[in-house]
Amino acid sequence: MLAALVQNSGLIVPSTWRVPTPVGRSAHAVMDVAATSPVSQATRGVVVPTGSSLPDRTRDTSKEKVVVLGSGWASVKFLQNIDTDKYDVTVISPRNFFLFSPFLPSVTVGSVEGRSIVEPMRALVQYGARPLSRKIKDRLSGRPGLTPEEFETARFMEVACTKIDVENNRVYCEDVSSVAGDRGFTLSYDRLVVGVGAISNTFNTPGVKENAFFLKEIEDATVIRSRMLDAFESAALESDAAKMKSMLEFVVVGAGPTGVEFAAELDDLIRGDLINLYPQQAEVAEVVLVSSTDDLLSSYDKRISEFTAELLKQSRVRVEAGVRVVEVKESAVVCKRKATGEEFDLPSSLTLWSTGVKPLPLVEELIAAVPEQTKRSGLYVDSSLKAYGLDNVYAAGDCAAVASGSSMQSDLKKLFKTADVDGGGTLTKEELLQLFDKIEDRYPQAAVFKSKVEEGFAEADVDASGELDEEEFAGLLKEVDSFMRNLPPTAQVAGQQGSYLAAQFNGENDKPFKYFHKGSMAYIGQDKAAAQVSMLKNLLPEFLQGLPLVGEDIVLTGSLAEVVWRFLYLDMQISNRNKLQVGFDWVKTIIFGRDTSRY
Amino acid sequence: MLAALVQNSGLIVPSTWRVPTPVGRSAHAVMDVAATSPVSQATRGVVVPTGSSLPDRTRDTSKEKVVVLGSGWASVKFLQNIDTDKYDVTVISPRNFFLFSPFLPSVTVGSVEGRSIVEPMRALVQYGARPLSRKIKDRLSGRPGLTPEEFETARFMEVACTKIDVENNRVYCEDVSSVAGDRGFTLSYDRLVVGVGAISNTFNTPGVKENAFFLKEIEDATVIRSRMLDAFESAALESDAAKMKSMLEFVVVGAGPTGVEFAAELDDLIRGDLINLYPQQAEVAEVVLVSSTDDLLSSYDKRISEFTAELLKQSRVRVEAGVRVVEVKESAVVCKRKATGEEFDLPSSLTLWSTGVKPLPLVEELIAAVPEQTKRSGLYVDSSLKAYGLDNVYAAGDCAAVASGSSMQSDLKKLFKTADVDGGGTLTKEELLQLFDKIEDRYPQAAVFKSKVEEGFAEADVDASGELDEEEFAGLLKEVDSFMRNLPPTAQVAGQQGSYLAAQFNGENDKPFKYFHKGSMAYIGQDKAAAQVSMLKNLLPEFLQGLPLVGEDIVLTGSLAEVVWRFLYLDMQISNRNKLQVGFDWVKTIIFGRDTSRY
Repeated sequence: MLAALVQNSGLIVPSTWRVPTPVGRSAHAVMDVAATSPVSQATRGVVVPTGSSLPDRTRDTSKEKVVVLGSGWASVKFLQNIDTDKYDVTVISPRNFFLFSPFLPSVTVGSVEGRSIVEPMRALVQYGARPLSRKIKDRLSGRPGLTPEEFETARFMEVACTKIDVENNRVYCEDVSSVAGDRGFTLSYDRLVVGVGAISNTFNTPGVKENAFFLKEIEDATVIRSRMLDAFESAALESDAAKMKSMLEFVVVGAGPTGVEFAAELDDLIRGDLINLYPQQAEVAEVVLVSSTDDLLSSYDKRISEFTAELLKQSRVRVEAGVRVVEVKESAVVCKRKATGEEFDLPSSLTLWSTGVKPLPLVEELIAAVPEQTKRSGLYVDSSLKAYGLDNVYAAGDCAAVASGSSMQSDLKKLFKTADVDGGGTLTKEELLQLFDKIEDRYPQAAVFKSKVEEGFAEADVDASGELDEEEFAGLLKEVDSFMRNLPPTAQVAGQQGSYLAAQFNGENDKPFKYFHKGSMAYIGQDKAAAQVSMLKNLLPEFLQGLPLVGEDIVLTGSLAEVVWRFLYLDMQISNRNKLQVGFDWVKTIIFGRDTSRY
Repeated sequence: MLAALVQNSGLIVPSTWRVPTPVGRSAHAVMDVAATSPVSQATRGVVVPTGSSLPDRTRDTSKEKVVVLGSGWASVKFLQNIDTDKYDVTVISPRNFFLFSPFLPSVTVGSVEGRSIVEPMRALVQYGARPLSRKIKDRLSGRPGLTPEEFETARFMEVACTKIDVENNRVYCEDVSSVAGDRGFTLSYDRLVVGVGAISNTFNTPGVKENAFFLKEIEDATVIRSRMLDAFESAALESDAAKMKSMLEFVVVGAGPTGVEFAAELDDLIRGDLINLYPQQAEVAEVVLVSSTDDLLSSYDKRISEFTAELLKQSRVRVEAGVRVVEVKESAVVCKRKATGEEFDLPSSLTLWSTGVKPLPLVEELIAAVPEQTKRSGLYVDSSLKAYGLDNVYAAGDCAAVASGSSMQSDLKKLFKTADVDGGGTLTKEELLQLFDKIEDRYPQAAVFKSKVEEGFAEADVDASGELDEEEFAGLLKEVDSFMRNLPPTAQVAGQQGSYLAAQFNGENDKPFKYFHKGSMAYIGQDKAAAQVSMLKNLLPEFLQGLPLVGEDIVLTGSLAEVVWRFLYLDMQISNRNKLQVGFDWVKTIIFGRDTSRY
């Protein structure tokens, strides 16, 4: 009803509504296409390019050449808005489709089918895929190159980018298909847009790569689904009650949106469907949600965290908060309670790792090659999303780290003076700690660094004098700035950045990028959701805006929130086909339940 | 419309309507889960059982114990009809779902989604899944054990059978899941029903196992789909026209229903959908259908073969008839024209092998262990589907070879006398050939054997005397009988056999099994199908039976046949969920086309 109203009113709910991007392998992480994705791995032989002898496939054109890396939210929103009459656009990705990543937790349990949330890139670069608002702008411009008839689509190539050569303004590409002719080639660019996403951060925890599952690509969902049903089938063969129970323990590490939604969907599956087919097993099955913080969904409003914790108490999901994972074994997770230091094992037949992201090797290499790139969390870009130290490279989405707040390095002199209480020209560890206490409100990165001050100080103190001179202090601040808070790795951020870059390139916007947080939503199980919406008002037709539940920063929890969640997500689907299919999947799930065939 | 009428009339179209079973790996071919199914392979570590030390998991029951092997048509139809009040039934299969195999060609191109044609075995053994006619019989019997409330479901176990031990009436089972406790165990049976299907017959053609794709399981469809789209993506990167063309050649070996339907669906995909996204590539793409016979669909009515050949001429499918495949290379198929002996190469970026089936290693081992098992094509069963030489082992579906026509061995004495023209007590090769010429009408297997008489004679002539004595002649006839024509490996045959066995076990039917061919159907592309129907009349409500197109052995071709094809197949789906989903998939394909995301 709501969605219908929203649609009929002619308003378009932006696809950048806050949607958490699950972490894991990225489409560009060819080298990382490992355990969780045997299909892609089996059909892909990765060959490292042999250098400058490769053929060049740059299109011969008089237009300015834009190369886009990636097929996620940032790239697609960029492509749907870029002026291809002005730019010659080539987009490359080893994944030839866009994936509506927020629904991956649903796909693992079959509430939504994988095929319902993908859309080929070649369809998305066509004129028909441009949003209505853009089509109107195109029409108003009166330029023939922006009409459906003469629109020149961006060129899509299903290849992985293996190297970004900023010296020569070109990228190295690799055809990773199992049916390939000449595998490697280069593409030159005038401007490069990096939208490759990020990969799961294991924080070097032993055993994660080998034994944990990630949830980032569509194949991951298939593998997780199969594993989960394997666990139920094998448990059904087990006569020993204790052994059976241990085979039905599922551990989710990380209580962000992906972790919480997966745990909730899994609980739904068990109580809603598996209970009919595996009654004894479903009875004892348990999902354990391990959170290093005390809160769930800690990036959300406190009311949402609390509601989620309450709701999960009524489910099969057991929360282990304030617990750090020390190691992931084949069928257990070794944990440490942060408060007491106590170590304990959780049995686990499926461990989902969803704790955070880090840059791809491709991006890390670029960061290492450019001295002005001082952040570790992503390609450091200024407020126009242009990479520091590079004139024509832009980044958007999870791979970008946007400058925000003050950099401590830029305030070096002032900080040193403030810290040097005794005026000795060097800083002791105590002076440093006092400084950080004083300034942590203005520089949040300082607060993060404080917990590691011992190692940090020792590392910065190059001459091991026990005190830091100004040069050593500068090195330390560079380190501290690397903790500067980034925008969250969400679809909403990535989409807004992609659209912003297109507008900037088109000459429609020369202001700095400003992230506009429209709200956060999460499905938390038992047909309930939680939504924190700042802009619901603006999305509704006028006559509904007076309703009491509409306003600034509304927090909705429960069944009503689930209705909002469903309709907004349905409306965010990137194509009409996706909308219809997701809607159908939901109806089907309500009528027939979820399919439990293991494949 | 038609389906609605059929359904409203209360008539049930049997699921055993002739549906060709595609060939390839079987669910039981754990050892054969190879190249085409990396997902299953990666999550399965096969361990060979260690023998009699294994635990026994036979259920403690006073009922007669039936063990069923397999989760295909034969097993499911058996399970849906067996009297579980009388028998304790356990069904095992490494695949925990039933697959509507006739739609696999559609799944490869996305006309139907994989998830739409599977149904969990655990759901199919429940009372609700029994056909209406059976529910009525159950109700009429008045026995409490056959009511929905007290119905005891068959036990399902997701394991592979690794060995059938007929001496001790038990089977060896292996939990092949990635989450497994004790992996191996045994099950004892009073009666064993073997319904494990068959695997693709490569006829030892070099390179087939390594380079060709099969289409038997749902994962195969995914891999083929991905490969096909990879070919288009890679071809789109290729600037050399000849190289590009060679990457867009798809070779289908075998012109039975699977081969023809796959070729037709692939042509539909190219001309209907890929043409929009890959215009240059779709223009030159070609599907080559290689047939060793001169006809396509040679087991169907001649009018169907001819119509199919005509229709394919209007498509991208090129037919190479009367051609044998000598070798399958990585990107080419080596062929030999049978008439001229000329050898030639067909370039191929995807080779589908769909030529015929042979028994699984599990079944071959059983055949080798029982002297009365004289057939190579399957477990040799009498007309009650009981295996020769065994008292309590039954077979149904592709793994069974039902005795039909006269066995030559049983007529040994008479045949020897007829052949021994000179009365010398031994047979020369000439006498043998004369005999075979004379009797080939009565014994079709003789005709098949004649082409190999040279090797056959030499092999039979144990003492190399150049003539065959009666004992040697008996050995030869055993060999000849192994060519005895089997029922075709179709869903219709398998389903009828499964239902028959249940009726026999239930004590409802003590007559021999008789196959009742209801008709054959195939989709041949461009929204056209071909159907040869003997019993359409009986399936229609009375007032429609007078229509001119209804009668004995009607052959329908073209668009009307496609409508019949769609409605009958829709009605054959094993659950309401499947019906709804397949119908929805078709509607979606008509409105939005097929999804071309490569995963």
